[in-house]
Amino acid sequence: MLASASPARLSVLRAAGVEPTVSVSEVDEDAVLAGLAASGPVSHSAAVVALACAKANDVASRSVERGELRGEHVLIGCDSMLSVGGELVGKPHTVSVARARWRAMAGTSGRLLTGHCVLRVADGAVVAEASGTSSTVVRFGSPTDAELEAYLASREPLSVAGAFTLDGLGGWFIDGIDGDPSSVIGISLPLTRRLLAEVGIDVAALWAAGGRV
Amino acid sequence: MLASASPARLSVLRAAGVEPTVSVSEVDEDAVLAGLAASGPVSHSAAVVALACAKANDVASRSVERGELRGEHVLIGCDSMLSVGGELVGKPHTVSVARARWRAMAGTSGRLLTGHCVLRVADGAVVAEASGTSSTVVRFGSPTDAELEAYLASREPLSVAGAFTLDGLGGWFIDGIDGDPSSVIGISLPLTRRLLAEVGIDVAALWAAGGRV
Repeated sequence: MLASASPARLSVLRAAGVEPTVSVSEVDEDAVLAGLAASGPVSHSAAVVALACAKANDVASRSVERGELRGEHVLIGCDSMLSVGGELVGKPHTVSVARARWRAMAGTSGRLLTGHCVLRVADGAVVAEASGTSSTVVRFGSPTDAELEAYLASREPLSVAGAFTLDGLGGWFIDGIDGDPSSVIGISLPLTRRLLAEVGIDVAALWAAGGRV
Repeated sequence: MLASASPARLSVLRAAGVEPTVSVSEVDEDAVLAGLAASGPVSHSAAVVALACAKANDVASRSVERGELRGEHVLIGCDSMLSVGGELVGKPHTVSVARARWRAMAGTSGRLLTGHCVLRVADGAVVAEASGTSSTVVRFGSPTDAELEAYLASREPLSVAGAFTLDGLGGWFIDGIDGDPSSVIGISLPLTRRLLAEVGIDVAALWAAGGRV
């Protein structure tokens, strides 16, 4: 089960042979971050893991309450943020914010952090949990004015963290990455594989289950 | 127009807003490489560019002969090879070769080279050509025996250069890359964008044409 509304995460998992049920959490992200900050300074990496685990556990407890998690299940939560120039940036929402972001980040690089949380659930109870963060450097290209305006007009960059996509129209303007490309799209397959192994599940077992998890 | 039979290249372009016509070349790749070698030692990078340009020019001349390239067109040819331990490796074709490749390359890294050739065609004549090679480091993970056997049983790695895919089931077993992920799938979007600019075309113009090229 995937605790995320992100179509990009779902398509990464589908392409990799897994067809998860999707259930969206109702976590108050600001409250989670405020709770973390109350006990001292929080690294960006710790923040995305805390959000991923809050989402996964929220979906797990709601699903258990509704009696949906009988038998064996695995539940994955993720949260992504882009750090550019030491600052965390989220979704731009508007064309003017996205234009300003691209003017500032063209030709530079940023770091995409994705927190992951994997829960193994057996007969309605969480029996194992593993979590971790992937960190990938993203090197931004320099679109021409005409290219940038056409990209903004597509509206694709408005609803994604950092105002770029790697797997869509934005791919033309990402010169390269150092790290795992699936983590930039939203869920790192190699990190998820290591976390699944920590809770005693291998990828071959997921495929053998017809990919339905 | 894309001078390649690769479904992976086609899907990279489609996701990036371009819907090319596909026309497969009839180039004798061994003859191209033998012709190159006759004039001295050839780098891997020069070999993939030569193959990409041979494919693009072959498709261009056949299409012009058939009267298919009236008006303005752009034609792209690509060729990919994986270099591991100083050796170029192609498609494994059989389960036993793919298993041996993975046993040798698990936990190590290789370099995926993709040659690109962009031709601008106007009224049946090639009016500009630009070419280049992308080079991306691929860091292989270490699948368990059960995972490797399940991956081989899927037959996905048998028909791809280097016995791995980044955009399919193999994504679980690629720990990371340093370079452009689209180049690993088979066509580098940022390099293609630079080559398009060299022949006087920008990406915004391709999208404006309804993505049909």
